[in-house]
Amino acid sequence: MIKVGIVGGTGYTGVELLRLLVQHPDVALEVVTSRSEQGQAVADLYPNLRGHVPLVFEEPSVEVLSRCDLVFYATPNGVAMRQAPELLARGVKVIDLAADFRIKDIAEWSRWYGMEHACPEWVEQAVYGLPELKRSAVRDAQLIANPGCYPTAVQLGLLPLMEAGLVQGPVIADCKSGTSGAGRGAKVDTLFCEVQDSFKAYGIAGHRHLPEIKQGLAEMQGTPVELTFVPHLLPQIRGIHATLYVSVPDHSVDLEALYAARYADEYFVDVLPSGQCPSTRSVRGSNFCRISVQRIQNSDQVVILSVIDNLVKGAAGQAVQNMNLMFGLDENCGLTQVALLP
Amino acid sequence: MIKVGIVGGTGYTGVELLRLLVQHPDVALEVVTSRSEQGQAVADLYPNLRGHVPLVFEEPSVEVLSRCDLVFYATPNGVAMRQAPELLARGVKVIDLAADFRIKDIAEWSRWYGMEHACPEWVEQAVYGLPELKRSAVRDAQLIANPGCYPTAVQLGLLPLMEAGLVQGPVIADCKSGTSGAGRGAKVDTLFCEVQDSFKAYGIAGHRHLPEIKQGLAEMQGTPVELTFVPHLLPQIRGIHATLYVSVPDHSVDLEALYAARYADEYFVDVLPSGQCPSTRSVRGSNFCRISVQRIQNSDQVVILSVIDNLVKGAAGQAVQNMNLMFGLDENCGLTQVALLP
Amino acid sequence: MIKVGIVGGTGYTGVELLRLLVQHPDVALEVVTSRSEQGQAVADLYPNLRGHVPLVFEEPSVEVLSRCDLVFYATPNGVAMRQAPELLARGVKVIDLAADFRIKDIAEWSRWYGMEHACPEWVEQAVYGLPELKRSAVRDAQLIANPGCYPTAVQLGLLPLMEAGLVQGPVIADCKSGTSGAGRGAKVDTLFCEVQDSFKAYGIAGHRHLPEIKQGLAEMQGTPVELTFVPHLLPQIRGIHATLYVSVPDHSVDLEALYAARYADEYFVDVLPSGQCPSTRSVRGSNFCRISVQRIQNSDQVVILSVIDNLVKGAAGQAVQNMNLMFGLDENCGLTQVALLP
Amino acid sequence: MIKVGIVGGTGYTGVELLRLLVQHPDVALEVVTSRSEQGQAVADLYPNLRGHVPLVFEEPSVEVLSRCDLVFYATPNGVAMRQAPELLARGVKVIDLAADFRIKDIAEWSRWYGMEHACPEWVEQAVYGLPELKRSAVRDAQLIANPGCYPTAVQLGLLPLMEAGLVQGPVIADCKSGTSGAGRGAKVDTLFCEVQDSFKAYGIAGHRHLPEIKQGLAEMQGTPVELTFVPHLLPQIRGIHATLYVSVPDHSVDLEALYAARYADEYFVDVLPSGQCPSTRSVRGSNFCRISVQRIQNSDQVVILSVIDNLVKGAAGQAVQNMNLMFGLDENCGLTQVALLP
Repeated sequence: MIKVGIVGGTGYTGVELLRLLVQHPDVALEVVTSRSEQGQAVADLYPNLRGHVPLVFEEPSVEVLSRCDLVFYATPNGVAMRQAPELLARGVKVIDLAADFRIKDIAEWSRWYGMEHACPEWVEQAVYGLPELKRSAVRDAQLIANPGCYPTAVQLGLLPLMEAGLVQGPVIADCKSGTSGAGRGAKVDTLFCEVQDSFKAYGIAGHRHLPEIKQGLAEMQGTPVELTFVPHLLPQIRGIHATLYVSVPDHSVDLEALYAARYADEYFVDVLPSGQCPSTRSVRGSNFCRISVQRIQNSDQVVILSVIDNLVKGAAGQAVQNMNLMFGLDENCGLTQVALLP
Repeated sequence: MIKVGIVGGTGYTGVELLRLLVQHPDVALEVVTSRSEQGQAVADLYPNLRGHVPLVFEEPSVEVLSRCDLVFYATPNGVAMRQAPELLARGVKVIDLAADFRIKDIAEWSRWYGMEHACPEWVEQAVYGLPELKRSAVRDAQLIANPGCYPTAVQLGLLPLMEAGLVQGPVIADCKSGTSGAGRGAKVDTLFCEVQDSFKAYGIAGHRHLPEIKQGLAEMQGTPVELTFVPHLLPQIRGIHATLYVSVPDHSVDLEALYAARYADEYFVDVLPSGQCPSTRSVRGSNFCRISVQRIQNSDQVVILSVIDNLVKGAAGQAVQNMNLMFGLDENCGLTQVALLP
Repeated sequence: MIKVGIVGGTGYTGVELLRLLVQHPDVALEVVTSRSEQGQAVADLYPNLRGHVPLVFEEPSVEVLSRCDLVFYATPNGVAMRQAPELLARGVKVIDLAADFRIKDIAEWSRWYGMEHACPEWVEQAVYGLPELKRSAVRDAQLIANPGCYPTAVQLGLLPLMEAGLVQGPVIADCKSGTSGAGRGAKVDTLFCEVQDSFKAYGIAGHRHLPEIKQGLAEMQGTPVELTFVPHLLPQIRGIHATLYVSVPDHSVDLEALYAARYADEYFVDVLPSGQCPSTRSVRGSNFCRISVQRIQNSDQVVILSVIDNLVKGAAGQAVQNMNLMFGLDENCGLTQVALLP
Repeated sequence: MIKVGIVGGTGYTGVELLRLLVQHPDVALEVVTSRSEQGQAVADLYPNLRGHVPLVFEEPSVEVLSRCDLVFYATPNGVAMRQAPELLARGVKVIDLAADFRIKDIAEWSRWYGMEHACPEWVEQAVYGLPELKRSAVRDAQLIANPGCYPTAVQLGLLPLMEAGLVQGPVIADCKSGTSGAGRGAKVDTLFCEVQDSFKAYGIAGHRHLPEIKQGLAEMQGTPVELTFVPHLLPQIRGIHATLYVSVPDHSVDLEALYAARYADEYFVDVLPSGQCPSTRSVRGSNFCRISVQRIQNSDQVVILSVIDNLVKGAAGQAVQNMNLMFGLDENCGLTQVALLP
């Protein structure tokens, strides 16, 4: 059994990790920490866990956490980079679900996240945990930078085209996210009455996931990518839908076959038959990414639709997938849940 | 492995059965039938099942179905009573998720369901599949009448009080259901734009679940019960919330302790600490029923809150729970999913 | 033109007042105050008001407010009782949309609202602004205690029965409210991801609207009323649905005729034909209350369904209705909007 | 008073027309027709109209309709082209809210709508009723082709750039629509449980609004436009959000000033300050279109966000706006409602 700790278990990513880990056959949940809820039963905060999680939130402590084989950081940006190095030094493996170790260019990271980086040396060693792109590195990693939700949907949607060098000119990523992506903090903007029955874009001037996506696409393609990224907020809890527009002048390629071949051995990536459009509910609560690729008739324009559950494949599920790889388990162990539909 | 067939797999109860059964370790799914979708891949209709269910909808046929150990009928009322007897005669076990075998009084059944009963003899033999009430009979049954969704929530909410003979006078059941309870038929009344952002009562003049609830409560209490049952439609997909009002003149009883004791060994019934109110999301996608009981200050009035997921504990999950009992498996086998929250 | 001021214009009640008042033919909006948003354009906070409201939020000041003929307090409980007396002394009329002047029993008020009352003398003079019950007093009032949302729905639902003295025994009010009733404060409990796709009861141990309802019912009936009041939170923005259960042993009364007669001259109360159930959307954005009354077959039990929009008839709309009466206008002036459906 | 008839008053466009027309000071509603609901009271089908509309659905008849000054067709495609010519011949003015007269190229129309056109001669005379583009022609028209919902949002979003000839290369319109756009027909795809809490694209292979948008943009720009149009379905009732991507190589133009100038005299078009993103709720129930235009930093890419209520500015409201122009009334007469927020 892998002894696991969770730091920052009170947010939506935290409760989703708990949901997945208590149903995982090879995990022993040792400790869940929260400064704000210290002493409270986890199941009192999240009644869905009643009968499944007997733990009480504890204060984060290196002593306790270092008894674990693996620690997940489900904390705000800037926490893991301060606390994780001590655990790493003691040989504990770490998966950070925040953004601290995602961007290799430290100056770029500081610009977007508005702080100095506390441990640039670990950024270099960290493996970007998108298994479909970095599987072997993940297997050997001690520190995983778990990808952001938008970056996961966008990168999986573009990977086959980018690797094949087929895209010409700018990439447009029109992305829509369920509100759980905004977290469980008390903010007016994410109140029910502000979100329900409405839809809007946000962050056009610049969203923090922009440099993360550009870094990934550039690596796939081997050259920098011009990217326009417009996120929108959906009146639903879970789900990311990326609608991706690229120009592919080479009309000789069978796009559906290209995608099917690239993802043939990927359990969690499902390429839909031509003409089917994936819905976010088809992955609700599951770790799957469903993708459709389609050329606009008589045009260079290609549209790719890519959906994930932002809390699963876009956060906690992908973290567990990375854990499975790091500990030599089947990659889909504990992650075979069928999406909840309807 | 239990060889299982599903008749009528295209409705919401059907897809929920499929979701649960493909994740069940002791089940081999043999056949899923549908007249209307015959020949179509199950996963084409329900993309959440892509990669999990390779089956194609087949025409219902006694030949094929009689190869199964157990057949679930997820069909409209009136179908199972016509088709199941032949399977039962061949030794196949049957669980009917519709209402054909729920009401012991045949005349009463005909009045509410507007048809003659096709096999009254099997009504007598059928076991009403509420395991918390009928566990040993379920174990030995060949035919299970799986309870309705409202009746499950209401009966579990009242069971300890009724068995203890503590209720005096009429029972009021103010019940609210998610829209999936209305099924997947194309009707104007359950269109998104008719249901969203609104709330209303329906069926006050008489809902078919009324006689089913009355039959159950009378059996628990030993005498007939006067019941006022008002169902309402919620602008959400899943979940039933029963708010139950009874008069309990005996103030000496510790109601919370009574409930805790009655349900101490029931895995799927969770009695909340005093003062906590259960939310339907705390059971979304899971087979749990969460209950709170509370006396109104200085009053004989007692309020009980009881929540279930209408598609799980109110339909498919309870059916699988019954299957587990009928085949000697652990009662919660394949049913330990944690509710999806948020 | 009536010169009008609004104190506390940033909450949902405030923006709804603004929506109604800018469309009112006899109102000149003089000032909207907010401490927290002082200096910001009203239409920047509420973009639906762009092009309709050129005002900027100002600091609340007696000097400015006393230039108005009427001031609405859309503030938290406890604000109006401190600030309004000075305006009242200067002859300004005041409508308080909070609870400061609703409960005549000062000790009872303090118990429920947890503070000393700052001006008990004005409580006595204040008129409870339910026009269907207190029309002539409202016409002459200088200070109106605008009713709460639940109390409006419940009292209108029971008024004809109570006045006729037909109810025997306890009253049960099972009430459901849209989330806008909880206000625009940043709280975890009313985040989109906490409310959406779920339903729950709250405040069973005692909700502040309980004494307000009991006071009103007792006045109608002439004797105290035993009331069980259970509020629930709906996953929708607007709408209150009260399901009311009473015992009416006298079967000789034609209940529908009783209601129709009592409300024959009430523009804003609509009694539905027998058997129709009102939906909250049928009053969304409008000042109407729609009511259905129905006897359970062969029973003393009577069920009344009463729906309003909590922000309109349950708050801002009723306040404007009171204003119309206080200033001798047609009672429905500026309030004839048709509900938005779908 | 303008004597008005509505053909096909049972759909969502019909009820929205009714909501607006009963509140219009210069309209006398003469007749509402429906074959399917003939004889039923309009307010029985739409309880929000109780007390506002005393009419009963009648069978469509030329005799009755020809007594009107103006007839709205809120019917499925293909109805108005068969029935309207007779009314037009008698001098009645007609506004068709369906697509029969929108496309000038008859062959193109037949290709997309799958039928022969019944009266090509009237297509030529029909005026495309986008007042911001065709105001003077609308004033003189006898027959109006009321624009589609997507085309309204997209064309208003691009109009200033297109007229100025600033756009280079293909246009991408990533559009999202509330479900009311799909109408009130009983279809599985628009059931509550199919739409709620999910999001998906549809009709990528070709949506009927594509040729309508291309026709409009080409007219504005003077040359054909390459357009990629991807519609998506939102889990909300009302609202269209168009996210538009174009390349504008000329960086010398102040885009916000260009839009502000073009729409300075347009009551119903609101250009937001730089950096603000419009939400669909800011126009819910109102006839406004709110637009934001923004250049991506250091890029030729320009993003325009355009929102309308699909049932108002995208259908019934725009139809009333056209009526006002045709009859010499103030263009915003009866259309000054403030959007319902929250």
